[in-house]
Formats: sequence, C-alpha cells, structure tokens
Amino acid sequence: MTIIKAEQIMLNEPAHARKAHDERFAMGSAFMNGSYCGLHEAGVPIVDMGFMHADAAYDVVSVSKGQFFRLEDHLERFEKSCEKFLLINPYSREQTADILTNLVKLAGTQEAYVWWCVTRGMMPADRADLESYQPAFYAFVIPYLYIANDEQRTRGLDVMISKNYIRIPPSSVDPTAKNLHWMDMKLSMIEAVMGQKDWSVLTDADGNLAEAPGANIFLIKDGELYTPDSGCLEGITRKTTLELAREAGIPIHVEPVITSQLLEADEAFITSTAGGIMPINSVDGVVLGDTDGPGEITTALHNRYWEKRWGGWLATTVDYDTSVNL
Amino acid sequence: MTIIKAEQIMLNEPAHARKAHDERFAMGSAFMNGSYCGLHEAGVPIVDMGFMHADAAYDVVSVSKGQFFRLEDHLERFEKSCEKFLLINPYSREQTADILTNLVKLAGTQEAYVWWCVTRGMMPADRADLESYQPAFYAFVIPYLYIANDEQRTRGLDVMISKNYIRIPPSSVDPTAKNLHWMDMKLSMIEAVMGQKDWSVLTDADGNLAEAPGANIFLIKDGELYTPDSGCLEGITRKTTLELAREAGIPIHVEPVITSQLLEADEAFITSTAGGIMPINSVDGVVLGDTDGPGEITTALHNRYWEKRWGGWLATTVDYDTSVNL
Repeated sequence: MTIIKAEQIMLNEPAHARKAHDERFAMGSAFMNGSYCGLHEAGVPIVDMGFMHADAAYDVVSVSKGQFFRLEDHLERFEKSCEKFLLINPYSREQTADILTNLVKLAGTQEAYVWWCVTRGMMPADRADLESYQPAFYAFVIPYLYIANDEQRTRGLDVMISKNYIRIPPSSVDPTAKNLHWMDMKLSMIEAVMGQKDWSVLTDADGNLAEAPGANIFLIKDGELYTPDSGCLEGITRKTTLELAREAGIPIHVEPVITSQLLEADEAFITSTAGGIMPINSVDGVVLGDTDGPGEITTALHNRYWEKRWGGWLATTVDYDTSVNL
Repeated sequence: MTIIKAEQIMLNEPAHARKAHDERFAMGSAFMNGSYCGLHEAGVPIVDMGFMHADAAYDVVSVSKGQFFRLEDHLERFEKSCEKFLLINPYSREQTADILTNLVKLAGTQEAYVWWCVTRGMMPADRADLESYQPAFYAFVIPYLYIANDEQRTRGLDVMISKNYIRIPPSSVDPTAKNLHWMDMKLSMIEAVMGQKDWSVLTDADGNLAEAPGANIFLIKDGELYTPDSGCLEGITRKTTLELAREAGIPIHVEPVITSQLLEADEAFITSTAGGIMPINSVDGVVLGDTDGPGEITTALHNRYWEKRWGGWLATTVDYDTSVNL
C-alpha cells in the first residue's frame, strides 16, 4: 500500500482552485474584533494580553474539498479551552461558526487552514480588576498548511526526541486547553532541524512522551496502537485516529508511553489538523521497523483518513456561492 | 519611617505632565517593524509567531523624572534573552536605545513604561525552514504602570501563594530569558483576586518560591534578606535591590527559598520595573511580622530606591526638546 497524495487529488479538481471574494482577500481573510478584513490588514493590538502574555485560547479547523471536518468538535473543544482559562468568547457557538464560514468564503479556498482565538483583551489600567477585561475575538483563514506535505508523508518524517526541552507541564499550563505557549516546542523544532531532522517530539519531566509541536504522537508495536493519555492536547485528529483504529479492529492503548517504546516501535506517526496522519520514518536516527518509509498500518490509517474525509465524513459543506455581508 | 509616595512627587513637578508630540501619540507611541505610530494604530500581524506561538523575547524599562533607569542593563538583558531563544534583533543595541528614546519623546511622558520585543516574525510556508524566518521588532511607550500604586505600597500587598498553578519550569522555558509565557501567572492572579488578595506568588514543583506575576519575591527574616536563586527572571529591580541591601549592610541569601519561609518571614516584598520595591502586608492571610503594613527594612529599601533614582542614579536623561524624525 502506498500513501495517497492530497495535493494530487486537489490538482485534479478544478473546483479547488482558489478564488478569493475580491483582491483584498487574496492573501487570506481575517476577522478582527467585529470586522472582516484582508489577512495583510489584520493587526492584533500590541497591548492585547493575547500578545503580551499569551493570554488566550485558540483552535484550528481544516477545510478540504470545500468541507469543514468535525467543525462541531472543534467548536466544542474551543469552548472547553476558554472555560479552562476563564475566558469568555464574545460570540456564541453559532456566531463563531458563521464567522469561520464567512472567512472561508471570503478567502475562496476549498483547502483551508482556519484559526481563531479569544484573548483576555487589552491591558487594563489595573491588572487585578477582573471586571475591566474585555475579551477579544480574532480569526483568520489561509490556504491549508501541512506539517508534512505529500513528499514528506510518502518518505516518512525523521524525528528527534528533544534532549534540551521538556513540554510545559499541565500543572503550569493545561495542554488540553489549546494555548499559545509554544516556546518549548519552537526551540525543540530548531534543535531537531539543526540535527538534520524534520520534526521534534517532546517528553515530560519523567521521560513520558507528551506531544510534538502542533501534533500528537502515536506508535504501533506488534499490531497494537499506543498514544499518551496526558500531557498533550486532546487533538481532534488524535480522536479521529483512535476511531479509525477501532473501526479497523486495532487494539488501542491510551496510557503513559516512554521514549524507549517509541525507539523500539514497528511504526509511528504524528497527527494534526495541519496535515492529518503523518508517518514517521525514523526516531533519533533509528529507522522504525527496520524498513524505510511509512509502515503498513500507518499507511492504511492515513489513506482511510483522507478517503473518509473526502467522502464527506463528519463534514460541514461551505456554500461558496452565497455572498458575505461585510 | 513611612513609604514615600511617587505620585505625590510627580504631581508636584509640572515638568512631569504629559505633553505628547502630537495628538496621534496621546494614548502612547509605538514602533512597528520600522515605523513610528500612535499606540492605537499599533497592530501585530495576526500571523506573527510572537502572537500565534508566544515566540518572542521582550523587555521593559522605566522612565521617571524624564530619566531611563539602568537602560544599559535592560538592553544587555534583552540581548541575552534573544540569544537564549535564538532570536536575532534586527536593530543594534544603539539603534534599539534610539527607538526607545524616540518613543518616550513622542509619547511625551516623563513617567514612562517602555516595552519592546523581537519575535520570530511571520509564519513561514515551511516551519522547518529556519532561514525563512524574518525576525520582527515591536515596541511601545505608555504612561508608567505600577503593580502596586502609592496606596497599595503604603498598606502593603496581601498576596496568595498559588495552590492551583506552578511556574513554568526552566527545563521548558528559561525564565531568565524574558518571555511572553504568562498563562500560569495570569491564572494564579485570578485565583488570588477571587480570594480577595492583591497579587499571587508562584512556586516550582518542589515548593520552592519562583516568582510573582511580573515580579521577583524577597523576604526578610532576623534582619537578613532572602530571594530565590533560580526559576525566576533575573530582574533588574531585583539586582538593584540586592545592591541597595549590600550598601545598607544587610546580609543577603540568594538561594532556594521554601513557602514556609515566606509565611514565617518578618517582612516581604516584590520587585518589578513596573512599580519598584512593593511591600507585602500578608501572605495567605498571615500578616507578616505580626504588624499591619510594610516592614522597616522594606520601607527603607523602597525609599532609598526612589531617592537614588530621582537623584539620577544610573540614569539616561531623555532630551524631550529635540525633535524625532518620523
């Protein structure tokens, strides 16, 4: 079995070509605290606590073939992230969905990366006056982003387990609430790239696998699937992968996973809204399963993921033909 | 001895009244990647990694009576923060100082809060392509901010040691590199305010004191001064306090400090560029030294800090009369 290619399929379907609402949205679309604008016009106030203090919750949903995937799941997770950080979304779930849909229509792309957040708003005169915070909502849409593109997914990612950084612990910042705290992940990425690797994986202080930058980590050993139970985002693609594995009759272990298990795995992959299921070739230079390229089970899950998505599974179709009131 | 009041002194000196360069800078001034603008016009691109991933280093210096305090120390620390995060400031130290000085002049305030950062710049198409990142520089100046104003410093702050959050550990994000990772601190502040306290203090996973949101923590026991040696920002006001204590012949202990030491302290205070030396009245409801209000040694250090600053100690005077090339 070989990895099916997403970009190939997109190129074959002219309807996927981008056609922005107007020139203003050619780079992408944004919604800044009440108004739609072009991506290049979207500025977060410099004194917004979301910038100065990473004081925000966010989420990312994807659109492929003009269809949101699991939009309701993303909206629900976002609400939980806000609750965990005591942030109040000024928009209802329905209003949020409308804004995101309008942004996709304005950007005119049928393959979209859709990002939104609620921040604690502008710095108040008295930081201890909780009533004075006015939460702000910002969102943008750009063409779809892959952590690993067709070429990388076909050969499999070479990853490095970070030696220099551990993932921020849940006792500091709850990773199940999607947040802007990425410095540990960014620096581990630089560590990996400097070591000629494609991506990094972070552990916690005890050496348990946590997550990769923007992605969950999975491994397969003796035909069974393992993924960490804590210290990581409860990814929607992670949830989807567990469902696909269950459908395929693969035994599942959601439990603490140590680094040696990853090094000795038969197969492994990372999952993200930004790229789906992405095969790993090697970990710290050790080629998994003694064979270059994605493993069989990983490839099957990868292909099933895209086939089901493109078949309309849990999809919310965007109607590009109705106009947006700006 | 009583706490000298900063605002009183400011009000007595007409030269301190704000006089913005023009109406555009009435709310404050900003410098966004090459151009000066009014604070209300200052927008960070929504796809800047400094916003999306808190991928930035920053610093804050203050101006009182038209004089920067320890500007060189702040510039030096900022350079080190950038190095630790592998960020490159597009401006030299001299250019950075010029930008900050111009911002103070444009805002026209002689009592200023001066904030600047370097971010990893706009999200590149390929996150693993380190060469494609273009660091961005943003800065702003607003009227001076106090964590604790005259009234609060006179009565002393009532603080709470956070029960719900520990400070992000150095193994995840180095706290000596001033960074935007504040969610642990922000949520501990809400925890404190909900508990009718003024400010919070965070510990590490082992129960050692780390820092307070935006401030270092100090305590005095039997006439000797204690402050944590790690897990915290190496604050410039912390450094200043240690120098003032040395001058005053107070024995100094820079070493791990556990929470029970704070609860049993005779006096305590927090330090920050945003407010100087700020006395603590109580910790978790326990009034320190069995007496309401700031302790004697704290008061002496507090007053000495402002007297020396206002006397021109380590000052860089801003020449408000020369114009800024916009």
